[in-house]
Amino acid sequence: MIDRLIQKIKETGTPIVVGLDPQLGFIPDSVKSAAFREYGETLEGAAEALLRFNMEIVDAVHDLIPAVKPQIAMYERYGLPGLQAFYRTVEYCRDRDLVVIGDVKRGDIGSTSAAYADAHLGSVAVGEQRFVPFGEDFATVNPYLGSDGVLPFVKVCKEEDRGIFVLVKTSNPSSGEFQDRLIDGRPLYEWVGEKVNEWGEGTEGRYGYTEVGAVVGATYPEMGAVLRKLMPKAYILVPGYGAQGGTGRDLVPFFNADGLGAVVNSSRGILAAWTKETYASYGENGFGAAARAAVLDMKKDIEGALAEA
Amino acid sequence: MIDRLIQKIKETGTPIVVGLDPQLGFIPDSVKSAAFREYGETLEGAAEALLRFNMEIVDAVHDLIPAVKPQIAMYERYGLPGLQAFYRTVEYCRDRDLVVIGDVKRGDIGSTSAAYADAHLGSVAVGEQRFVPFGEDFATVNPYLGSDGVLPFVKVCKEEDRGIFVLVKTSNPSSGEFQDRLIDGRPLYEWVGEKVNEWGEGTEGRYGYTEVGAVVGATYPEMGAVLRKLMPKAYILVPGYGAQGGTGRDLVPFFNADGLGAVVNSSRGILAAWTKETYASYGENGFGAAARAAVLDMKKDIEGALAEA
Repeated sequence: MIDRLIQKIKETGTPIVVGLDPQLGFIPDSVKSAAFREYGETLEGAAEALLRFNMEIVDAVHDLIPAVKPQIAMYERYGLPGLQAFYRTVEYCRDRDLVVIGDVKRGDIGSTSAAYADAHLGSVAVGEQRFVPFGEDFATVNPYLGSDGVLPFVKVCKEEDRGIFVLVKTSNPSSGEFQDRLIDGRPLYEWVGEKVNEWGEGTEGRYGYTEVGAVVGATYPEMGAVLRKLMPKAYILVPGYGAQGGTGRDLVPFFNADGLGAVVNSSRGILAAWTKETYASYGENGFGAAARAAVLDMKKDIEGALAEA
Repeated sequence: MIDRLIQKIKETGTPIVVGLDPQLGFIPDSVKSAAFREYGETLEGAAEALLRFNMEIVDAVHDLIPAVKPQIAMYERYGLPGLQAFYRTVEYCRDRDLVVIGDVKRGDIGSTSAAYADAHLGSVAVGEQRFVPFGEDFATVNPYLGSDGVLPFVKVCKEEDRGIFVLVKTSNPSSGEFQDRLIDGRPLYEWVGEKVNEWGEGTEGRYGYTEVGAVVGATYPEMGAVLRKLMPKAYILVPGYGAQGGTGRDLVPFFNADGLGAVVNSSRGILAAWTKETYASYGENGFGAAARAAVLDMKKDIEGALAEA
């Protein structure tokens, strides 16, 4: 699946991932009231609002970008109807030929991790038939439990041509509490990075990258530079651009000399663009067009920074 | 909620948690065929089999135990129907006055962790009303992202009288890959344990325990002894008894001098008791009675070990 992601990056000419993390707070009233009229002010109504909002965003930007990253927590918050909106969002994006990165941050041990891997990247047998529970192309995975937690995902990646991004150095302010602590003179995130290499061995695709990538926050560009060298074959999923403070210039260290090696996520910066002064002229009902403009601006920002570098 | 858990432990006289991690592989054919007859060999049929199996297990053991721990991965594997079976399992257990520990191992940052906390421990607003998405009493939380990932859960714990168990030292063989690495002379799991204390501050209940507990595997009793002293006010959720190799004697270090401080989970050892030689006489359709016998044997094993200590 890493080959397909890279192919899409080449086709669209940009490494931008739109994070589909909808929140009722920035979904325009017109979308919410239409959903509530049909389903009431209920979990079903909220879930329908998330889905309709996503569909309009995806319609507005799908030709510009290689991939989307729905954050499952934003759907899980609305219970079963919310998770149905997640399912339908994944389906809608795959139908539009987008690579779907399920930001699920799952991770457990043995047969339990295998169950999560089946749920998000694989399929499950019931009697003679197999079913695809959620059907993402990539999933994010938490490494705290070690290889027992990650290898069941890698197994499914190999069997079903899927990929994962392992949390290495996350974008949040407190990520250093554990991730930066020194072990034999090197921070924990480097040790996790070494394991990412090990877990990915033998899964190289035709561009030399493996199915086991890493999450490294745009908010830590110096650590990104170190990790880029440490994990030369791992694609890096970079959150933290925009709303969390990362800029185009911060992204440069995450790329390899081949111009590949990183995908950059922006969520609120694009989904909620219509609420920002820069894009206010699109108005509430132009939220899709505002998102498109924000993607184009982000593309220019990244291109400019990479050209300067 | 920690007070209610302790109250239930006192009432039942045992710290046993039954892990509701059903797998089609050990669900008796009679249960599966009834479910498949009604819903077909589909995700719905599989989910119905999990639910019916759980209900019969819960009916057989609910008066003996304080709590259950459904592992959400085993339901997520069957997609939306599976998650509906999770929801209905939680509801069924709460109706039978059991404390429900959602083994969800969630963890993200900021507003995303808040969304998970709402989903599993809290409630969510839609318009004027609030809804309870999944409604567990406790959830397990992954600490890799630091305080940003955990504090949103603690906030909901305080507001809604709920609790969490943070992964500190997990029961699996490779848990040491990162968790045992030395930082300033002490293993990472001790540093996480220190944070558990910090996160729990100010949430002490009437028995002196906090709403922020810890997960420490029965398979590592010596580390359990250290962590028990390090986190005197944290309840420890102990997985790894039985199928993973932990014995009654291994559990002793996890308890405080007050006889409290730990709950011990067993999943397959109880759910699949009917498949074991010891309980074979109950037969396939006596799987509930076999589970009850396995709970009583486990209770005796723990009582014996604690009495000897």
